[in-house]
Formats: sequence, C-alpha cells, structure tokens
Amino acid sequence: NKSYLLKLTCPDDLGVMAKITGHLYQHGAFIINARHFADPEQQRFNMRIEFDDRQFSLSQQAFEQEFAGFAAAMNMTYQLRCALSRPKIIIMVSREDHCLNLLLNKWQSGVLKADICAIISNHQNTRKLAEFYGIDFHYLPIDKNYKAQQEAKLWQLFCEYDGDLLVLARYMQILSDDLCTKLQGRAINIHHSFLPGFKGAKPYQQAYDRGVKIIGATAHYVTEDLDEGPIIVQEVKAVDHATTVKDMIEIGHDIEATALARAVRWHVEDRILLNGQRTVIL
Amino acid sequence: NKSYLLKLTCPDDLGVMAKITGHLYQHGAFIINARHFADPEQQRFNMRIEFDDRQFSLSQQAFEQEFAGFAAAMNMTYQLRCALSRPKIIIMVSREDHCLNLLLNKWQSGVLKADICAIISNHQNTRKLAEFYGIDFHYLPIDKNYKAQQEAKLWQLFCEYDGDLLVLARYMQILSDDLCTKLQGRAINIHHSFLPGFKGAKPYQQAYDRGVKIIGATAHYVTEDLDEGPIIVQEVKAVDHATTVKDMIEIGHDIEATALARAVRWHVEDRILLNGQRTVIL
Amino acid sequence: NKSYLLKLTCPDDLGVMAKITGHLYQHGAFIINARHFADPEQQRFNMRIEFDDRQFSLSQQAFEQEFAGFAAAMNMTYQLRCALSRPKIIIMVSREDHCLNLLLNKWQSGVLKADICAIISNHQNTRKLAEFYGIDFHYLPIDKNYKAQQEAKLWQLFCEYDGDLLVLARYMQILSDDLCTKLQGRAINIHHSFLPGFKGAKPYQQAYDRGVKIIGATAHYVTEDLDEGPIIVQEVKAVDHATTVKDMIEIGHDIEATALARAVRWHVEDRILLNGQRTVIL
Amino acid sequence: NKSYLLKLTCPDDLGVMAKITGHLYQHGAFIINARHFADPEQQRFNMRIEFDDRQFSLSQQAFEQEFAGFAAAMNMTYQLRCALSRPKIIIMVSREDHCLNLLLNKWQSGVLKADICAIISNHQNTRKLAEFYGIDFHYLPIDKNYKAQQEAKLWQLFCEYDGDLLVLARYMQILSDDLCTKLQGRAINIHHSFLPGFKGAKPYQQAYDRGVKIIGATAHYVTEDLDEGPIIVQEVKAVDHATTVKDMIEIGHDIEATALARAVRWHVEDRILLNGQRTVIL
Repeated sequence: NKSYLLKLTCPDDLGVMAKITGHLYQHGAFIINARHFADPEQQRFNMRIEFDDRQFSLSQQAFEQEFAGFAAAMNMTYQLRCALSRPKIIIMVSREDHCLNLLLNKWQSGVLKADICAIISNHQNTRKLAEFYGIDFHYLPIDKNYKAQQEAKLWQLFCEYDGDLLVLARYMQILSDDLCTKLQGRAINIHHSFLPGFKGAKPYQQAYDRGVKIIGATAHYVTEDLDEGPIIVQEVKAVDHATTVKDMIEIGHDIEATALARAVRWHVEDRILLNGQRTVIL
Repeated sequence: NKSYLLKLTCPDDLGVMAKITGHLYQHGAFIINARHFADPEQQRFNMRIEFDDRQFSLSQQAFEQEFAGFAAAMNMTYQLRCALSRPKIIIMVSREDHCLNLLLNKWQSGVLKADICAIISNHQNTRKLAEFYGIDFHYLPIDKNYKAQQEAKLWQLFCEYDGDLLVLARYMQILSDDLCTKLQGRAINIHHSFLPGFKGAKPYQQAYDRGVKIIGATAHYVTEDLDEGPIIVQEVKAVDHATTVKDMIEIGHDIEATALARAVRWHVEDRILLNGQRTVIL
Repeated sequence: NKSYLLKLTCPDDLGVMAKITGHLYQHGAFIINARHFADPEQQRFNMRIEFDDRQFSLSQQAFEQEFAGFAAAMNMTYQLRCALSRPKIIIMVSREDHCLNLLLNKWQSGVLKADICAIISNHQNTRKLAEFYGIDFHYLPIDKNYKAQQEAKLWQLFCEYDGDLLVLARYMQILSDDLCTKLQGRAINIHHSFLPGFKGAKPYQQAYDRGVKIIGATAHYVTEDLDEGPIIVQEVKAVDHATTVKDMIEIGHDIEATALARAVRWHVEDRILLNGQRTVIL
Repeated sequence: NKSYLLKLTCPDDLGVMAKITGHLYQHGAFIINARHFADPEQQRFNMRIEFDDRQFSLSQQAFEQEFAGFAAAMNMTYQLRCALSRPKIIIMVSREDHCLNLLLNKWQSGVLKADICAIISNHQNTRKLAEFYGIDFHYLPIDKNYKAQQEAKLWQLFCEYDGDLLVLARYMQILSDDLCTKLQGRAINIHHSFLPGFKGAKPYQQAYDRGVKIIGATAHYVTEDLDEGPIIVQEVKAVDHATTVKDMIEIGHDIEATALARAVRWHVEDRILLNGQRTVIL
C-alpha cells in the first residue's frame, strides 16, 4: 500500500469532522492514524491524517483532484503528500556542533525521515563532520560589510537544493527580515533559553545573573521578531546556586540538541500546524 | 444548551470515525470537544466526545435510543451522560491526610465536578476535616479478626451512597479480591512509588535503600493484583544522596496528592478508557 | 542534647573552612549536618551548620560570646539560633486559597517547623479555614483611597505578632517600596509564572498567548522591583496546544502551592542565604 | 598553579571536617571547591576537594607523604591526583551508536576530560565513527561457544590500555561475574529503563505492556547482580497511551545518551563515591 500524510486547517463548523472523515471514507482512504484539534478561541479545526490506499476507489490523481475540490468547498488550507517523499533540509551551524551532531546521528539511524542536503557554516570546523556523513558543506564566512551578499548566497543555495526546511542549529547569526519572511514556517531555530525569558545574546549568563533554578531551551519557527516566533518544543533542566555559567552551557547543550531534533522531526512528519502565534502539534 | 459526555470503544474498522461523527452530525449534535485514539495493537478505536444539543433534530430520549441502536450495530461499548450530572465519590483514608486535603480543596474550588458523599477511615483524625467541609464521616476501625465485616460495612456504605467511584487516598489497607472485582474500574488508589518499582510496603525506604535518584507516585485503578492495576497518572521528583527517607516521605506527599487529584479529576470527567492493562486518557 | 542552627557568610579566604569548623570543634560543637558553598564570582563563603552541645566545653552563653568574637574577626555575617525555636509566620492571602491550604496542612502535620500566627486577607472567604486551624484572622479590605492606611495596619500587625516572615500566598496586591524595604529578606511571594517570563498580571493568559509548552511557578523574596526578587524555588509543568488558560490556572495551582511551601520551609529551616540577586540553598 | 583532586571517605567522628580542612590549610593547600556529605546512616564522612598549590609549604612529594600519614591516622580511604591527569576510558558498544556518539562529541568538545583509548564492539558498524575520531577500534565478535575467550581478550585490551574506566554504551552483553568483580567501581552501564523497574531484556516493551506514563534511563556501576549496581544518574521522560514501543525507543535514546554521558563525566571528575549500594555525588 501507499501511505499519505494529510494536514489541514479550516473553519470549525458543525459537522466538520464528519465531513472530512466521511470524504476520505467515501473514497476508500484507510485511516492509519489521525489527530485533530479544534481551537475554541480561533474557531479553527486542525487535523493530521495518515491513511493508505488499500481500498482506494479512485486513482491517486483522481483522489487528489477530488480532495482539492472538497477542500475548496470547506475553505480549507491543506497539504497532502506521499508519506515516503522526503523533505529536503539545509542545516546552518556556527562553531558549536552539538545540535548538528545529534541531527546527523538521528538522520543516519533513520529516525529523521528527510534528506539532509547541505550544511552551511560561517566557520570551517564542521566541514569534516559533513564529509564523514557525505553531506555537501558550504563555507559562507561573515563579513560585516558584505552581510547582504552572504545572505543572498545562502538563499541561492537553499533554492538550488530546493530546500523545504532551514534548520538553524546554533547558527548564532540574525537573518534579515526579508529572508525571515521568505522562510516563514520553513525555518526552525534553537534558542538556548526558556523563552520568553532571556532573549538575545548570552542567555545562560542572563539566567545565571537572574538566579533562576531551572534553565531551558526553545525550538521555534523563525520570524522577523527575534526570539518571538511560534514555539515548537521546550525542554528544561534543574540547576542550583553551584551551577556556573560554564556548567549551564554544558547542561544546556543536551536540551538544546534534543529539543531541536524533536522539533525538526515533528516538522518533517507534518505534525506542526501554525495557529496564529501558537503551534498545534498533532 | 445541554451538554453531553460520550465515551466509547469499538473495533477499529475502515470508516469508524466517519460513521461515529457522521451519526452525531446527522442528528444535530454540535461537537465542542473530541479526542480519539485508535490502538494499532489492540485494533480498538477509543473516543471521547463532548457535544451539545443546540441543533438536535430529536428529543433527548429519541437521540439516546438512536445512539443505542447505532452503538449496537458498531459493536460499541459506550457511556453517554449529561455533562452536568455529578459522579458520586467515596474517599477512604488512613491517618495521613495530605491527599484527602488536596481533593477537598479542589472539590470546594469547583475543579472537581463531583459529589464527595463520604469519607471513611480506620482512624478518627480526619473526622474534623470532613465536618469542616460538611461531608459525612464514617469510622470503620480495623480489627484483624473482623476484616470481612469491616469490608462488608464499607461496601454497604458505598452502595447506600450509590457511589460511582471509590478513592483510596492513602488508605493503606488491602481490599479483598472480591471487593476489587466488584469495584473494577471504579476504584482509584495512590501508591507512593514510581510503579512498577517498589511495590508493597514502605516504598520510600525501598527507594532509599536502592539509591534511586528520582522518586515517584502512581495513581492507578485497583485490581486484585496489588499495585498492578492500570496506571492513570505518574509524577516524579529528583532526589539525591542527601535525601533521607523522611525527606522522601515529605517530598512524596506533594506528588502523591497531585497525581491522585489529577487521576480522580480525569475519571470524573470521563477521560479514562481501559485498554487491557493500559489506560487511554482522552 | 540541644541543637543549634548556624548560617553564615564571610569573605572566602585561604583556610576559611578550616577556621570555622576548627572553632566549632575546639569548643565541642558536634556537627550533625553541614553544607557550604564558596561562590567563585563573589568570593563569598556561605555555610549552614546544624550542631549539638553534647560535648560543649562552655556554657551556651559563653559559646555564643566566643562565636561572636570569632565572627567579627572573620568579617562574618551570621545567625545562630536554637534549632527548636520557631520562626513566626504571618500569611497574606487574597481569594484563592490553594497555597494557604497546603501551607496549613504541612504546618499541622509538623513538616513546617514554625508558628503560623495570623492570616491576613482582603477578602473574608478564608476566615473559616483560619478558624478551623485555630489561627487569628484579620480582614484588611482594600480601598484605593486608603491603601497606605491598610498597609500601615498590616505592618502594625506584623510587628505586634513579632513576625519573622511574611508569606504572600497569592495575595495579589503590590506592597509599597517602603514596606518591601522593611521586609527585605523576610517576605516570600509566589508568582504564577516561570520568571523572568510573564511578569505582572495574568501570567497564564500571557503564557497561553505566547504559546509556551511548559508553564511554571516561582517563589521568590519580595523586593521593590516587582517580580524581580531573588528566586528560591521554581517548578514547571508541561502543557500543549489543547491546554486552555483555565486548565493552566488549575495545573498551576499545584506547582504554585508546592513551590511556595518548599520555599517557606527552607526559609524557616535557615537554609537560604542571599547572595546578591541570587539565593544559595544549603 | 597545579590543581589536585582529592576524594575521600572516613568514619564520621567529632571534628572530622575540622581535621581534614585544617590539615590542608596547615600545608598551604588552597581550596578551590569542596563538597562533603556525612551519611547519618552509615556514619561515614565523604568529601571531594579541589585545591591548588599556590601556597604549598611542602614539595608535592612531601605533601603527598604527609597526607598519606594523616589519612592512615584518620582511617581514611582516599584518592589524590593531579587535576590535569586524564583517566583512560575504554568504550564498549553494540550496534546502536547514540550513546557512543554523544560521548565522542562531548569528548571532542573538551567537556569530558579523559582519554578515550579504544572502542570495542561485537559489530563492525561503529568502526568508521571510531576512525573519524582517531580512536582505536577492536572488533570482538561474540560466539556462544567462545564467550570466555572473547571476554579474556576484552580484559587483556583493558589492561594493555591501562584503562581506568570501562563504559558500556549500550553493549547489550552480560559480563561474567568474574569480570564484574575485577571491574568493581570501574565499569559504568546504561540501562534503558527507570530501574528498578523493567530489568533485563526489552525494557521499553515491558514499559509499554505495563502502561507506565513515564519512561526512564539509568546509568549505574556494573556489579555481578545484573541491573542492580549502584545508580549514578537517572533521567525520565513523559509518554502517553499513543506512544508506541518504537517511539519509546527513540525518545529513550536521548535520555540514555545524556544520562550515560553525565555519569561518565562525574566519574572522570572524581565526583562519585560508593556508599554501600548507593552513590554519593559531590
């Protein structure tokens, strides 16, 4: 059988779930997995369905055409794709490679069902790791006077690779508003604090100075407002008065890497729907 | 509008969600909230739906009759009740009152939408608390030679109050197999360990002796096999080498109380379905 | 034997631990429990020692005099008291009583080794609970035009009871800068967010709007800068897209109550040292 | 300055801390960091001290001799070493490389202050990773009829490398009692459950079948009693009814890797003291 991933959002009216599942049933889609969330505030219905074609009454093409018509009638935004197709990921990284390293390990072990096409960095030190995993490496150093050119090159690479997702795996550089807009919903960043606490630079130093008893990491979509994008995953770890900034950085590495890897996985599996400033994970 | 709570389980076949939501839609049930889980192992479909009658095409009675027929055709086990009806709870407690105290506080603040009919104890010390909250108190002391009589009395009280749920809020006495069977799915216990670790008596001493770095509490349905019933909620808390057994007991009080209160709340809101040895929380 | 609690802070020089423990040893103080923390940033040495007099070579009075001289020579700030003496607590509360309720339960069970002298509220609803526990209740309603008088009355009560600690158990009113200064290091507040995120009013609504995946509660000392005081305890709990503001409030109740109770306990047991903006918990 | 790490355990008598810190002070050891724990049950005093020689009144050799005499008089077991010396680690691994991968990343980034001398595996698949990091790789396949020979070879390698610590990074093979005894306190294993729950094989399947709501990982010293050794680190993660065994395995990978890496780090930094069946982490 061939499996499909459908994610959709539409206005939440009477009978919306009956209509959607009824439409699939009528054309023989066999639901393997389904989750939904009807947001009472926004009156939006969000759903993710994994189904296969074992009882399809139509060809794939006809099924997709039928669904497109149905979706239009329901005022629905949706994405339907073959479950085996693999989203294309470009990873950006700065000097610290702990997030990159976990992503590569999970990718190689088959947990991350995507194609990692390229690693782009403003430093050379991760080149060897990229080569070890057989992934293209691009060195895009940053020169204050040529930031726009560097970003243009980055965007060009993303387009050349036909990228679906840009992962900022501790890239530590701010993208321009223009690029953020282009990448809306297609770029995930890891911020090394429990947002909205400690935005901006040196969050562990900030956390130390404030004397918090728990530190965190936040994976979120990139938006023009720095560290304000929709949150996907947060992880936390207890610390105490004896935890130095250096300790926090080291403890933080673990939760940064796992939070980012989880967020990337959920994105790749089409589990995340944007619901205004918030995410729905299905 | 009048709201209803429906919880159901049936075999997971093609179109089951379409049929169920279609049936509700057809009779004008307006879904406020719905969650489902299709267990791939057991091939069971579980669902909880909260709906109201704002667009009912039938009387309540007719709707219920229609649904009964539909359920039979679907080979469905279900429970349908008015959301405003309040389950009747009997709480059993021994000397330690921290779990009882939290349940009463949540009940009084309106979080626990149930009627707490009676508190039964083998000690007198919680009588005053019961009186403060205006709840019947029954003192059923335990005499080794008259255990069966004490339990018979307990069961009699449960029946007289027309109890829906028996909560063992640190009752610390083992119920007979017979009573466990009678109360299947209707009795919740809190065990002061992270089950399946440290079953039986003195779990904190056991945890201390084993040198664990995290302790826990487990709220579960009571079954004939002591501490083996389906788990509803587990909570944990970090400890270290300096944590004494006395400290563990004190730390444990907090997670016992909150785990039990959450489990009772979910039961009362019809969120829990039994799925073999496991629970599904919707 | 008679036990003592000593907590101290002094500059961190060569041999400071040897000198302090040597002084105690020399006069026969038998250390039951000791913890220390030498802050490398502030170059401060902090220590908490529990000892008894089983081998005292001096009278209590002479011991205390000796220690005072020693402390002066060490440039030490310290507090030495008999372990059995009980700090006096005044609790302030607004309408919501979940924090108060847990404090009272822990106090009655003997975990909180302090005297709760009075409960002060701007509402009448917790009067009965105070009476149940046999604690004085004072109703100090708030009138916008007489805020200063209300606060003067509050301070008068605190003084009359000879209070050691003021606990704001969800009091929900801002104290004046003057009163905050008077109560420095002697007033603990619970804020219903994971500070520094979501300061000010309606933190759960703020958390919901921001779409965080974990909520928190923070017990901290009160300072003139609202929600900026030194943090004592933080607790967190995972939430998801389906968690409403109302759910957050209810989930939050549990972590607010336990975080505050822990902070109050540690204060009462002389475990907390102020280290600039940060706390050291020993 | 030259720094030293001292870890010690001795009977807990009057003045023990004064004597130890006094001895160091007398010879000019400048304490950078110290933690201790006096176990009230076992009446043992445990301490870890990091000090430097900036004010040493003796040569290193004389200091060590003096300390040896002092330790004997105190009935003390201790280990004193230069902080810069690096323990030698041998890692054993089976097919799954997530734990190994994190250890190597932390080692390369300088967090793990040890020499990783060799990776030994009963499979070939991690050979390339070893080569990438420039570490010796030994393939020791397992043949049921030659288990003793394989283990003899393993022990020989450990001795040849002059190993200080054997890390079982998901090695999945049981060591003989004899080897466990030889390696007592020098071998760390990661078990993929929250011990003592789910010992033995397929712990995630066991956890799924039991329906727990939290899964865990446990890093512990290896002893002859399988999965019964002293626990060093435990980590947990929430799961729910929808979490499959496969999901658990994937979620578990993260906590296994971080728990093991932390345990190895603490061992390497001489932070762990064995206290009967329990560990003290200083």
